[in-house]
Amino acid sequence: MDEEQTAYFDSGSTTRIDSKVLEAMQPYFKQDYGNPASAHKKGRKAKRAMNKARETIAKSINAQTKEIIFTSGGTESNNLAIKGAAYANKEKGKHMITTRIEHKSVLNPIKWLVKGQGYTVTYLEVDSQGFVNPEELEKAITDETILVSIIHGNNEVGTIQNMEEIGQVTRRKNVLLHTDACQSFTKTPIDVEKQKIDLLTINSHKINGPKGVGAIYIKEGTKITPLNHGGGHEKNIRSGTPNIHGIVGFAKATEQANKPEHVEKMRKMRDKIIEETLKIPNSKLNGPTGEKRLPNNINIYFKGVEGEALSGYLERKGVYTSTGSACSSKKLEPSHVLTAMGMDPERANSSIRITLSRLTTEKEVEHMLEILPKVLENLRKISPLY
Amino acid sequence: MDEEQTAYFDSGSTTRIDSKVLEAMQPYFKQDYGNPASAHKKGRKAKRAMNKARETIAKSINAQTKEIIFTSGGTESNNLAIKGAAYANKEKGKHMITTRIEHKSVLNPIKWLVKGQGYTVTYLEVDSQGFVNPEELEKAITDETILVSIIHGNNEVGTIQNMEEIGQVTRRKNVLLHTDACQSFTKTPIDVEKQKIDLLTINSHKINGPKGVGAIYIKEGTKITPLNHGGGHEKNIRSGTPNIHGIVGFAKATEQANKPEHVEKMRKMRDKIIEETLKIPNSKLNGPTGEKRLPNNINIYFKGVEGEALSGYLERKGVYTSTGSACSSKKLEPSHVLTAMGMDPERANSSIRITLSRLTTEKEVEHMLEILPKVLENLRKISPLY
Repeated sequence: MDEEQTAYFDSGSTTRIDSKVLEAMQPYFKQDYGNPASAHKKGRKAKRAMNKARETIAKSINAQTKEIIFTSGGTESNNLAIKGAAYANKEKGKHMITTRIEHKSVLNPIKWLVKGQGYTVTYLEVDSQGFVNPEELEKAITDETILVSIIHGNNEVGTIQNMEEIGQVTRRKNVLLHTDACQSFTKTPIDVEKQKIDLLTINSHKINGPKGVGAIYIKEGTKITPLNHGGGHEKNIRSGTPNIHGIVGFAKATEQANKPEHVEKMRKMRDKIIEETLKIPNSKLNGPTGEKRLPNNINIYFKGVEGEALSGYLERKGVYTSTGSACSSKKLEPSHVLTAMGMDPERANSSIRITLSRLTTEKEVEHMLEILPKVLENLRKISPLY
Repeated sequence: MDEEQTAYFDSGSTTRIDSKVLEAMQPYFKQDYGNPASAHKKGRKAKRAMNKARETIAKSINAQTKEIIFTSGGTESNNLAIKGAAYANKEKGKHMITTRIEHKSVLNPIKWLVKGQGYTVTYLEVDSQGFVNPEELEKAITDETILVSIIHGNNEVGTIQNMEEIGQVTRRKNVLLHTDACQSFTKTPIDVEKQKIDLLTINSHKINGPKGVGAIYIKEGTKITPLNHGGGHEKNIRSGTPNIHGIVGFAKATEQANKPEHVEKMRKMRDKIIEETLKIPNSKLNGPTGEKRLPNNINIYFKGVEGEALSGYLERKGVYTSTGSACSSKKLEPSHVLTAMGMDPERANSSIRITLSRLTTEKEVEHMLEILPKVLENLRKISPLY
């Protein structure tokens, strides 16, 4: 199929690199390719580029430059936050708190710590729109609690937690707060001071930057045990020759994305898509609306069709969507997020996710809105469930 | 300083990306940018590209395609090999064996396991040229030994260990053999079957590929505990959205580098540089010669000058070299590798490393050979040590 005819609505999974981002990366491929750990000029040049990138990213979340550590992506940052904080604080306690709607790269490191390392975990329930109750969180904190990890903007249904209220609880209780902000970064305000966040995960490929690069914000003074030991890069927290071209691209993507007009544009597209798709009979929105929802996320239930089948038939017409997160999309289980929000397996399995980036075009939206009702109608005709 | 006038001799630290490698990466930046975990066409296309890359890399070391797992680089692969094997085999024993000439990304994970996780380690001594004695290795193996980690081609002095002999010992003793082959990959033959290697670390940025990507070969059936838990990518061994453009570039770099003529070219340059620099009075080669030395490595002792000072003055003339590895180059301690080879601190501190890549030009070599004796003479004139 001609690339021209496609409409990509899986930006919650990954995005294409923005031309300006790729342009910013160019000098670092073949010219300024030094290792920032090298003492010579090429090394120093790489180090300067890296620190400039660090500054850009720090500013975008109101952090100090030295509080940003580069990693290979969101999964590594989540593992480093969770295992790193768990190892470094085990003298204080071994209890952690998280939610049932986290990404697998938060749930699975915790499961691993619980299974073999003697840690315990409390899972917070969420309401029908995916919100955590800060009062429930407060009740769950014990003297043994060392870490709370709550996803900022949910990757499946777009629910944006009230981090400020959550941060007040954790700071008052003297417990570390980690948040996976891969989906929310540049799409809703993040202010680590105001929101009292101690550890924050962000990455590049969700914001039209290159793959293979991410960062973790570590509040000054927070103890973290490294996962990658070695040459002592990144203040000894994350060894390994830094991915300079990736880091420069990540910073450029941050700079490009971090503009209110992009959020506004995506929000308008999102609301148009929600409005139009809800006109289809027997469809329902999963998750909240307005400011409390990621501006690029739509998750819709269409009674009587398998989400996987719908997504598959849409693909044949050049419309790329997903069911839940890419990381779980090949496992045919009902989404753990929709299930945690109280939906029955039928609804969870009959929902699809439509996600935008700031590069999504009106033309793509129109194409999708033209194709979707037709495909759906055909599928429902043959559905034994409808 | 004009880039034209420079001569880069720090390829042991990092290299520039080959034009053909960058070309191969292009489609994956803005067009085929899918997440290989996605079920749709863009995802499948990414997955195909990734598996093709996996095949190229597997073939280059005589491994099976499924035995290659992509990581963010050498440091992560070394950490995964060592901690992953340590965790997965702790029921069998907690003893490891390594050498005193490893890269920090092998030494430091082991130190961490010893310090806080109840493991023990035996460090094998090396001879004056940096070689491990396989008989010493055999004697060091106990019933508790689970892993032997020995660097294939040393990053500082270029010593290439006899992996075939080493592999015979470890396989006979039923102990896992890991080797850090970041420096030797594509520069000296690697055959995981013949050399009986169970775990092997390679990366991309040492072979004119992009930064931020590497791989680990894990022999089929070898138990490894993941370091990054999450969505279950890479057979559940290394979660995280794969760095597709990086992986494609890594494979292209492997394909480009893996040609006998490149090794031959580097070896000739190396031997010319060794021959010419040894004409300088009071200079000595550190490490072996001929086939037992990496084709791109020169490490020379110049009596009476600080290596750091020599490297710094060479830089002012556009010649980039290093003292030891980049990862340690800012710490002003004598090299642990040269020290392990029995050199006194004076010799260790008066040595520099000159490393080549297949893209190093004759012009660069001539420039360096013209500059080096002059800079050295001037430095020796003012040296209180000479």
